[in-house]
Amino acid sequence: MIKPSILPGFMELLPEDQMLFNKVKDTIRKNYEKFGFIPLDTPVMEKSEVLLAKGGGETEKQIYRFSKGDTDISLRFDLTVPLARYVSQHSNDIAFPFRRYQIGKVYRGERNQKGRFREFYQCDIDIIGNEKLSIMYDAEIPSVIYSIFKELNFGDFVIRINNRKVLNGFFKSLDIEDVSEILRIIDKIDKIGADAVKEEITALGVSADIVEKIMSFIALEGNNDSIIEGLKALKIENEAFTEGIAELEAVTNHIKYFGVPEENFAIDLKIARGLDYYTGTVYETILKDYPSIGSVCSGGRYDNLAGYYTNQKLPGVGISIGLTRLFYQLREANLIKTDGNSTPAKILVIPMDDDTSYSIEVSKTLRTAGIECEVYFEKGKLNKKLNYANKLGIPYVILIGSDEVETGKLTFKDMKKGEQSKLTVEEIINQY
Amino acid sequence: MIKPSILPGFMELLPEDQMLFNKVKDTIRKNYEKFGFIPLDTPVMEKSEVLLAKGGGETEKQIYRFSKGDTDISLRFDLTVPLARYVSQHSNDIAFPFRRYQIGKVYRGERNQKGRFREFYQCDIDIIGNEKLSIMYDAEIPSVIYSIFKELNFGDFVIRINNRKVLNGFFKSLDIEDVSEILRIIDKIDKIGADAVKEEITALGVSADIVEKIMSFIALEGNNDSIIEGLKALKIENEAFTEGIAELEAVTNHIKYFGVPEENFAIDLKIARGLDYYTGTVYETILKDYPSIGSVCSGGRYDNLAGYYTNQKLPGVGISIGLTRLFYQLREANLIKTDGNSTPAKILVIPMDDDTSYSIEVSKTLRTAGIECEVYFEKGKLNKKLNYANKLGIPYVILIGSDEVETGKLTFKDMKKGEQSKLTVEEIINQY
Repeated sequence: MIKPSILPGFMELLPEDQMLFNKVKDTIRKNYEKFGFIPLDTPVMEKSEVLLAKGGGETEKQIYRFSKGDTDISLRFDLTVPLARYVSQHSNDIAFPFRRYQIGKVYRGERNQKGRFREFYQCDIDIIGNEKLSIMYDAEIPSVIYSIFKELNFGDFVIRINNRKVLNGFFKSLDIEDVSEILRIIDKIDKIGADAVKEEITALGVSADIVEKIMSFIALEGNNDSIIEGLKALKIENEAFTEGIAELEAVTNHIKYFGVPEENFAIDLKIARGLDYYTGTVYETILKDYPSIGSVCSGGRYDNLAGYYTNQKLPGVGISIGLTRLFYQLREANLIKTDGNSTPAKILVIPMDDDTSYSIEVSKTLRTAGIECEVYFEKGKLNKKLNYANKLGIPYVILIGSDEVETGKLTFKDMKKGEQSKLTVEEIINQY
Repeated sequence: MIKPSILPGFMELLPEDQMLFNKVKDTIRKNYEKFGFIPLDTPVMEKSEVLLAKGGGETEKQIYRFSKGDTDISLRFDLTVPLARYVSQHSNDIAFPFRRYQIGKVYRGERNQKGRFREFYQCDIDIIGNEKLSIMYDAEIPSVIYSIFKELNFGDFVIRINNRKVLNGFFKSLDIEDVSEILRIIDKIDKIGADAVKEEITALGVSADIVEKIMSFIALEGNNDSIIEGLKALKIENEAFTEGIAELEAVTNHIKYFGVPEENFAIDLKIARGLDYYTGTVYETILKDYPSIGSVCSGGRYDNLAGYYTNQKLPGVGISIGLTRLFYQLREANLIKTDGNSTPAKILVIPMDDDTSYSIEVSKTLRTAGIECEVYFEKGKLNKKLNYANKLGIPYVILIGSDEVETGKLTFKDMKKGEQSKLTVEEIINQY
């Protein structure tokens, strides 16, 4: 006998949580489709030479890689590399801008720790242009984020927006070449505070007056218009900087037409989102009731998606939701709760004697009317059968004995209220 | 530069086919949920010792198995073994009968050949009892099959039903112990014909009178009632045989109450479905317009799901649809066609000049009304923009220039009919 168990670092849910997880996943999917994103479903495993074309990097150690026969295979560790491969492989068959969504599992053999998973869902959208891509798509992305998190109802949230050109231009103007270390320090400001950031940057050997300039730059606050004005007032003569401001202005000016309320998005000059990938707009999404979990939806603009596979220049903008981790964190924090349903069934039909034919016909009528239901066929005491409905959180029960068969008046029980009434199938369907 | 390509034997679809594939998958899911099946999502990889507990068998060679660190890992090759592991692992937390569905990818390193895939979707339902499970669940399963294939609209189909106890009892009564070889031969009758079957069975050394008995047994035809009568008329004194007839009778008698028309199911004594797994009712589903692809949905009753993991007896009944292969075959046979849509978007909003704000607001209004849509932000000639809509199969286009902004009357273009009219957003929503 083998003890049934799964690998450590993998998430597997009981029915009640699975129902909730699927509800969240379906909401994300529905909203992606509402914005006309095209579903994609690439293989979970790919040729290692293709998937690892970029090579190196921190993720490479974590990749599930193995051989089968002569083939060197890796499991995908994100949905971006497969997208790059797909777009360059099929560029003649797809229309640009190519708007795709993919919701699928990816694999990373991370160190085993609470809240980190080795198999997890990513829910990605990207808009890929052929040679160029309008900045207006950067303004559209926050409206997708907004419509999802509004519907998910995890409480107040804010989409933080920045532009890498503004950051790069600013640091270039200070003659700082390697901005990555400084950005990494700034990224921690919410956790360690402004003073500690100042100290750490100073410790890098940056002169006091430049540290002051950096600190006052990232301290630029207020509403979006005043931050833009503040940036312009710096009068920095740098092409990237100027371009970055123009982009940031265009994006924030147009987001509102998409219906995103002012309180749900804000320029934040402190965010950078990774160091070598994004080249323009960047996004983070923070749940106000639970900022400690960090960004729940991030992304940005990149100059070139698929340089490893094609000479065609493919700029894009996109975001990703790491659903498995997010779900785990929200459940831990009690920020989402199940509604007690462990099944899609809304009605349980219980035959009270051996002749089940009428019960079956009732279930058929309910399904035809679009009501998810099932018949409980096992024998046993009524209590056991009602317990089944309770355990699964099925809200209504129909009891059918010989009386019900004769009169067509069914015993309809509301499991939450404990109320019981006599109704015909049609009355049940209408009332439902 | 690396050539972008995927592994051989993997299916990857272009948007138009992906849309169609998802539609089929969603239909299956919706119907599974209509019958109150609970979604499950087990990990794609599991401990090899758990997944291969049963050991041996033909599939073992095909399994993707590898090590990461000290861990011996395998990718799931079906959804049944993970279900067995799940139910035995969580038996205290789930309610029985446990009705679960799972739609997910499984992996088999099969020999590379047309129409065979190494990664493919299985769409499974199973109903698992604790110690026992009513035969009525066997009668329910065909109604799930019926509701799916009715809605999928792949043409006429028939669900063939048999019972392994009838087969086993019959062959036992003939003193044939090893029935597997004979069943394998009988299984080919549709391809090779009755005479060839007779020859092959004779070649096994079976005596002429017993061959005759076998041939007249499998030749039992007519409607379900007359086959049942024919079986009873054989007057075979064997417990399994008698029990099998009673089950077959109970199942076929009750299927009709579930709303499955008589023409869509039939007893077929020739089907056996695998040799060591099923123990009672077995199912096959044949598309009448395309019988050559074989059964598109199969399954049956088994005595014990999880003997390798638990002493708890877990009988069950279930079916599986091999969606990837089915989709491939139906597309090859032109039995399903896409409706030309490569995107969920139903309307493309095209701004005719640089000010996109009104176009964005229109798209927002459409989405709020539940209409999937997108705005085309790239610059260029109108023709290029209309081409984009055509290439993606977006059925309607709204053109917005300064006239439209001023009057609120939008140019609404039906791309199929080529007709064009002036409508307000509200009129478009109402008419849609």
